[in-house]
Amino acid sequence: MSIDTRLTELGITLPDAPAPAANYVPYARTGNTVFVSGQISQDENGLIKGRLGDGMSVADGAAAARRCGLALIAQVKAATGSLDRVVRVVKLTGFVQSTPDFTDQPEVINGCSDLMVEVFGDKGRHARAAVSAPALPRGVAVEIEAIFEVE
Amino acid sequence: MSIDTRLTELGITLPDAPAPAANYVPYARTGNTVFVSGQISQDENGLIKGRLGDGMSVADGAAAARRCGLALIAQVKAATGSLDRVVRVVKLTGFVQSTPDFTDQPEVINGCSDLMVEVFGDKGRHARAAVSAPALPRGVAVEIEAIFEVE
Amino acid sequence: MSIDTRLTELGITLPDAPAPAANYVPYARTGNTVFVSGQISQDENGLIKGRLGDGMSVADGAAAARRCGLALIAQVKAATGSLDRVVRVVKLTGFVQSTPDFTDQPEVINGCSDLMVEVFGDKGRHARAAVSAPALPRGVAVEIEAIFEVE
Repeated sequence: MSIDTRLTELGITLPDAPAPAANYVPYARTGNTVFVSGQISQDENGLIKGRLGDGMSVADGAAAARRCGLALIAQVKAATGSLDRVVRVVKLTGFVQSTPDFTDQPEVINGCSDLMVEVFGDKGRHARAAVSAPALPRGVAVEIEAIFEVE
Repeated sequence: MSIDTRLTELGITLPDAPAPAANYVPYARTGNTVFVSGQISQDENGLIKGRLGDGMSVADGAAAARRCGLALIAQVKAATGSLDRVVRVVKLTGFVQSTPDFTDQPEVINGCSDLMVEVFGDKGRHARAAVSAPALPRGVAVEIEAIFEVE
Repeated sequence: MSIDTRLTELGITLPDAPAPAANYVPYARTGNTVFVSGQISQDENGLIKGRLGDGMSVADGAAAARRCGLALIAQVKAATGSLDRVVRVVKLTGFVQSTPDFTDQPEVINGCSDLMVEVFGDKGRHARAAVSAPALPRGVAVEIEAIFEVE
């Protein structure tokens, strides 16, 4: 089954691959490795802002992380032409905008990790780091970058 | 001399390679590169929590970073089957849970960097970044991820 | 036109490639990939300290990021012997020392991204992540690490 078919069965529609406005690009390929730029949490209503530990629940944080994951998948599709060329998700680095006493970074970033396994199966299992940041661009709740191995 | 022999001579016992509880994995290999997930500071007594700049000394932070390093080495051993297959330690990224006025991130992460050179010799010399985070998973003092080149 | 000639035309003088004082190295090469250690903001007058959102302007932050970029370029030149061996700038990760309410991380790190395109042209376009840190080594305003593909 192709990944596009799996996306359809899962009822997942990828967002447009956001284009950066500055002198950087959404992804860069070197050999069989694609580095995708940090994707900030947003959906069809705009940016998902908020601070974990201060009025934003872990569930809402995980939902924001899932949106970052959809953008990451949209970018690697743009990079390769087809998600079937993804050999594996190698690495995610997730940054959570939080208060200093927040300790559930893993549960937040799971929103993205779970999506990767839903979409790519075992190829979606990845190495990961999850940490907090005091502030993220535009006040978003989550930013996640990724490394993919591709054909 | 094998790395395992060197570990014995140094009196170093590796911890078990911790298994993540979520949809990610402790390491991912692509080509000859192994990405090891962020390892949080813990020892046989449990998690090493604390905040640099607020009641935790630099020496205690460095000891916590060394524990992260032991876990990183345990993971790459699990990934390759033998530490003698490590060609070099390529990169460490270290996150220190600290107050905003803390400035000794390098001295803390040296606890891990020094361990890599103790264990791997010149192959242990790596590129590095060391920064603070306002919060880390479960309140730990240090989280470090690594990239290794392997045979 | 060689990159060294372009640097001269741009009136850019590279700083010395700073040498770390600890058990890590300024860069590590694996295959055709060079990982450059996080470079902290400094110029001929010393460290560029400050906190975005608290008395340091975005323009000054971008200037600090540009200095990090010069150091990154100096390091990859040291790694390869010639900047003409740089195939592309693959990835930048930028950390901005800021208050929790600061939201212009992209504009700060653009100081480095813009430099890469000035110097390397289209080869300078890279994937990127830009986040805040509550604290950086020695109190500097910006720290940036980089990945380059080289011949």
